[in-house]
Parts: sequence; C-alpha cells; structure tokens
Amino acid sequence: MRKEYLMTPGPTPVPSEVLLAQARPMIHHRTAEFDAVVKNCAEGLKYVFQTEESDVLIFASSGTGAMESAIANCFCAGDKVLVTTNGKFGQRMQQISKAYGLDVHLLEYGWQQVVSPAAIAEFLQANPDTRGVVVTQSETSSGVLNDVKAVGAIVREYPECVFIVDSITGIGAVDVKTDEWGLDVVMTGSQKGLMLPPGLAAVSVSPKAWKAYERSTLPKYYFDWKKYKKNLADNTTPFTPAVSLMIGLNESLKLMKAEGIENIIARHARLAEATRKGCEALGLELFAPVEGRGNAVTPVWVPEGIDGKKLVNIMKNKHGVTVAGGQDDYVGRIFRVGHLGYFGDFDIITTLVALEMSLAELGYEFEPGSGVKAAEAVLMSEGE
Amino acid sequence: MRKEYLMTPGPTPVPSEVLLAQARPMIHHRTAEFDAVVKNCAEGLKYVFQTEESDVLIFASSGTGAMESAIANCFCAGDKVLVTTNGKFGQRMQQISKAYGLDVHLLEYGWQQVVSPAAIAEFLQANPDTRGVVVTQSETSSGVLNDVKAVGAIVREYPECVFIVDSITGIGAVDVKTDEWGLDVVMTGSQKGLMLPPGLAAVSVSPKAWKAYERSTLPKYYFDWKKYKKNLADNTTPFTPAVSLMIGLNESLKLMKAEGIENIIARHARLAEATRKGCEALGLELFAPVEGRGNAVTPVWVPEGIDGKKLVNIMKNKHGVTVAGGQDDYVGRIFRVGHLGYFGDFDIITTLVALEMSLAELGYEFEPGSGVKAAEAVLMSEGE
Repeated sequence: MRKEYLMTPGPTPVPSEVLLAQARPMIHHRTAEFDAVVKNCAEGLKYVFQTEESDVLIFASSGTGAMESAIANCFCAGDKVLVTTNGKFGQRMQQISKAYGLDVHLLEYGWQQVVSPAAIAEFLQANPDTRGVVVTQSETSSGVLNDVKAVGAIVREYPECVFIVDSITGIGAVDVKTDEWGLDVVMTGSQKGLMLPPGLAAVSVSPKAWKAYERSTLPKYYFDWKKYKKNLADNTTPFTPAVSLMIGLNESLKLMKAEGIENIIARHARLAEATRKGCEALGLELFAPVEGRGNAVTPVWVPEGIDGKKLVNIMKNKHGVTVAGGQDDYVGRIFRVGHLGYFGDFDIITTLVALEMSLAELGYEFEPGSGVKAAEAVLMSEGE
Repeated sequence: MRKEYLMTPGPTPVPSEVLLAQARPMIHHRTAEFDAVVKNCAEGLKYVFQTEESDVLIFASSGTGAMESAIANCFCAGDKVLVTTNGKFGQRMQQISKAYGLDVHLLEYGWQQVVSPAAIAEFLQANPDTRGVVVTQSETSSGVLNDVKAVGAIVREYPECVFIVDSITGIGAVDVKTDEWGLDVVMTGSQKGLMLPPGLAAVSVSPKAWKAYERSTLPKYYFDWKKYKKNLADNTTPFTPAVSLMIGLNESLKLMKAEGIENIIARHARLAEATRKGCEALGLELFAPVEGRGNAVTPVWVPEGIDGKKLVNIMKNKHGVTVAGGQDDYVGRIFRVGHLGYFGDFDIITTLVALEMSLAELGYEFEPGSGVKAAEAVLMSEGE
C-alpha cells in the first residue's frame, strides 16, 4: 500500500464526507428532498461568490461550459469584446469568443505577466462601443493572479459593457468580491475550491449582465441562463441536474460555511506562501511574477540540468505525490503544485519533502530539509 | 426505517458497485489510470450502441446537452430539418432547432400516437433538400416507442440528410442497432439504461454525420464533436471530464457487458410486459398505443374518480415507492412506472403491490392480488 496525495490544481482532493454523500442511493430530482438541495446550493454559492445582487446558476458541465455560457448569453454576433490573455485559459475564452463570431480584440501578455488594468482603460476610452471585457482572474496554467478589482472599477464606468471573470481557480482560494468589485459574470468549476469531483460549473450573473442577456441573439439552449433562473425560483433546474454532484456540493458548502470564506482565503494564502518559501529555500525559482501570484497553484521552474518530466514522475511513481507539469511551451520546464480546496499544512510539508527526495535522486544539489524548514517557519508565524 | 424504491424513468437506481466506485478518492484526469477509464468507457458505449462505424463521444452534461450538440454540429442556420414530435422530448428537439435558427418543419402527433415513417418518406420526397430528420425513439413522457428502424431505411436514401435519434430512454432498454438501421446520431444520458447518476451524456456520430459536421457553421465550443473525437484518439477528453461519473460508467459498463446487450433488452421487455399485464389486470388502462409501447417506462391512466396526484403521493409517502406523475396536459391524469436500468422481477412486484394498496385506500374497486398474479404469470412464462 502507498498513500496517494493529489497536489494538482484540479481535480483536487474531495473530503470523505463529500465522497460518501455522493454514494447515497439515487433520489429523484423532482422531490421536496432534492428541492432543498438546490436551494441550499444556490444560497451557499452566493455566499462563496460574495454576492447578493447576482444570481448564481449551476450547470451540469465542466468549467468550459460556464465559460461558453458567458459568451453565448451576453452578446450578439459581431459585438466588440476585449479578451485579455496571459495563459491557457485566457486563450480558451478567446477561442470561444471567435467560435461565436464576436469581433474579438486582444490584449495578449506572456504567461509570466499580469494583465494591465491601465491598458484596458485605454482600450475602452478608444473603443467606447465595447460590449464586454474578459479577464482570467487566476490562471491555472501559470499561477498568475490578475487584478480584477482594478478592472472592475474601470469597466463599471461603461454601462453597456459587461465584465466577465474566469475565476475557475479563483473562487474559494483568493478574494472574489463579486458585488463590491463590479464583477458581472464570474465562473467557477466544481473540482477546484469547491472540493468536489468535476462535472458541475457555476456562473454568477449581475443585473448588468441580465441587461446584456436581454439584448443577446446568439443561439443557446442548454446553457441558456434564463431557463436556469426561472427554475431556480422554484428550487429546481430546467434539465436533469447532476444529482450526486449536487448532493456533494450541498455537503462541501456546509464545510465552507463552517470555516468561513475569510478563513478559507487566509488558509490558502498561508499554504501558498509556505509552498513558495519552501521552494525558494531549495534554490528553485518561482514562475509567476511577484506582482501577481495567486494562492491556488504555485508553478516552479525546473532547475537547469534537471528533466522536469522525470521529476514529476518520480514524485508520483515513487512517492505517491501527484503534482502537475507545465502546459504548452512549458511542458517539462515547470511543475505546478496545487493547493486549492481541501488542503492543510501537512499536505504542503509532504509535497516539499517528496520534492526534496526526488530532486536529490536526480542529482540536484541543495541542503536537505531546508525547504521544509522554510515552510514550517511560514506555517508557524502565519498561524499565530 | 422504510425501504425506498425508485421506480422513475430517470434518475434510475444505481447499483451499489457503481455508487461506491464513485466514492473512491479523486484521481487526476491526465494519468494512465484515467486514460484506461476513458478507453473502456468509449469501447463499452460502442458495444451498448451496437456500433462499429460510429464514434461515441461522452460529455459532462445532461442528455439535453447531447441533444443540442446534434443540432449545433450537423447544421447551418436556415437548414431545412424535419422534427417529429409525439411528446415532451420531441418538443425539446423542436425548441433547440428553433433556437439555432434552423428552418424547422414539424410532423406533430398526439402523445398517444406513433410517428409515421410513411409521412416522413412523403415529406422527404417533396423536400429532397432536407438536411436532417429528428425522431425521439422512446418518449419518456408518454412511453411511446417510435419505429426508428423503418425511418432509418427511408433517410438512408438521402445522402445529404442525417437521421438524428433521441434514444435517451431507449439505449439499454430497447434494441438500438445504430449501424444496421442507419442511425446517424444517437443520444443517451447516464441516468437511464446506463444505471448511473445524471451528469453524463453520450452521442454516437456516423460517417454521414461527420460529413454534415464538416459543412456545419453553427457556433459551438463545449459540445464541438471534433474536439472530443480528436482527444478520444489519445484516450482523453478536451475539457475536464466528470471523473467520478466516468469511473462509475466504467463499472456499469462492466455489468452490462457481463449480462450481454441482448439479455438486457430481453429483461426490459419482460419487466415491461409484467408491468403492463399487472396494471391491466387491475382494470387500469395503458396510455401508450398497442403499436408503440416501449420497455423503459409504462404510463398508465389514473382511473375515473381517483386523484392521480394523491395516488402517486400515497405510493411514495406511505409505501416508499416513487413513480413519476404525468407531464404537461397529463399532470394528475397518468402515472408512469419506470423500469429502465437496474431493475429485476421483484421491483415490479413491489410496485404493483404498492399500487394495489394505494388504489384500495383511495376506494378504487378491484380484486386485491390480481395485479401481482398477472405479473407473476408473465415473469414465470417469459423466464422459461
């Protein structure tokens, strides 16, 4: 027997309470029992999304479905939108916008750069007819955190322009003040901060986004927001919901409410800082820039002379610790430690020790124990 | 404690082996372990769909997502399609086709009628430019079974016209010979014959449907078939799959292969016949016409003078047996007994006894035990 540790930025570990809730005998979705589940999930998500003004709708789909819903429900073909990209998921929003025939303008950044709110402000000044701005809050591919609070303040000045935020690895890991920051559409997926298996996605829709919906003529059906809103008023769903995952969500939201959203965000900040300090103490270089480091995932450069794929394989196959590799241009060049959702101090310690042992095996030179020592210091001081 | 029996046409009961497989600790979806799950699921579904020529693609969505995918992937705006309706789900295909701006022609039937293959042949003769024909094989709302074999033979003569079959409650309950009958696109959902919780949908795509795909210009992304096909070649998925449901599907397909698709279909025929004969012996009238009775669900008229909602409530609240009520015009007028998926002889017996007890309580006059007796006779004779 070997214990397995899933340290990836999604899927993330699922608490046993949630796993077992999903193994309960199947119930029908048009029953008082399940109506209560839908009601609790919708209310719990509003708490997690920190919103009272927006509706939070739930789809049986992965996060990409929610991303597509944002485009299909807010726009008409030919609408001018500004899509910012600094990683794989920003690129996906670009692809979806193009698939729907929008007039897509790009602000493209490298994977190690943050999106510039000033550049967005400049674009909107020059293009006041822009109908939407899209930003990935937390880039899973690069660990970069973009400042959606600053962008929200800018887009708010344009009454015809909605602000769409991919927060798939943001919600439940970093602060997302949907109402206060003016985030019109915010998306997440279940296999992230919500501590569930993949298969559910949620999207918040502000009053401004509902106005965009009324104007939108793009074809939609399964992801048609209004159908979900109408049914949610009766604590139900327009199409058969993913019953077992919803029952799981009901459980995980109980855990999240018990901990409190501020505490959850603080825990993620602590674990991320411990991971960063631990890696740096080993002489490793962090991938994300200082000005934009998220708390969901920590990408780290593989040191010179070390084979990144081998490193990830040794960690997994010898030590049972699964971290993610790099994507696209960064395959084999970076590894990514997820600490998003159901994670505690000793998951970080475990990962750092597995990393030390694997680096040693590959001939990398460092002071054994130094990574753990640095992390321990963070975990002690921050816990005070 | 009261034992609960879920006798609805979806969600349907999930075998404990499958429920527990889904409660296993989460694994990452880009691993050799999960690749094997994807491979087995894709192969197993081809077996269940009785196809070698078609690809079977799996979405994280409910069945409606697969229905939408058929429209978005096969057509261009303005394409002429013939949509047949004789129940709630045919109407949904009509709504989706309209949402995507197709030139929708309707062959509308009452909920107690079967779709006429001759009328389809006539329409195609008069409209040889038709790009698609849509038929609901097994109408969950009415229990009616439409003859898709006959329609397949007709549509096959039109090389530019694809035949789209909603078999959401057909697959795993009645015969679906995808290749032999010329069914170009066949859809199902997980919470039906596949014995899973809801949250997965599958769609088969024939070579003829792939030709339609190449021509199609409708916007699509999350349900874009080609993305799934491309990834399936590497035993993976374009977007994060519903990992726990896929692991469940892997288990349920093992159970289905062990029983054999012919035996599964024969079992459903037996259970449906026992249900029908049992109800008739109680003096109740079946809803679906003799020429088109499916084996997934048996809708039954509520007898004169009995309150249908009360009947369903007593069965559920007093006896723990959940059957479905009627939909739309038939709310309170019919009840529907599901026997689709994980069902055996004694589930039918249990339901008929609960029905007898509930009818007796409501003052309906009949010979107690007569329903069970008739069902027992079917179950014995057919089991020989």
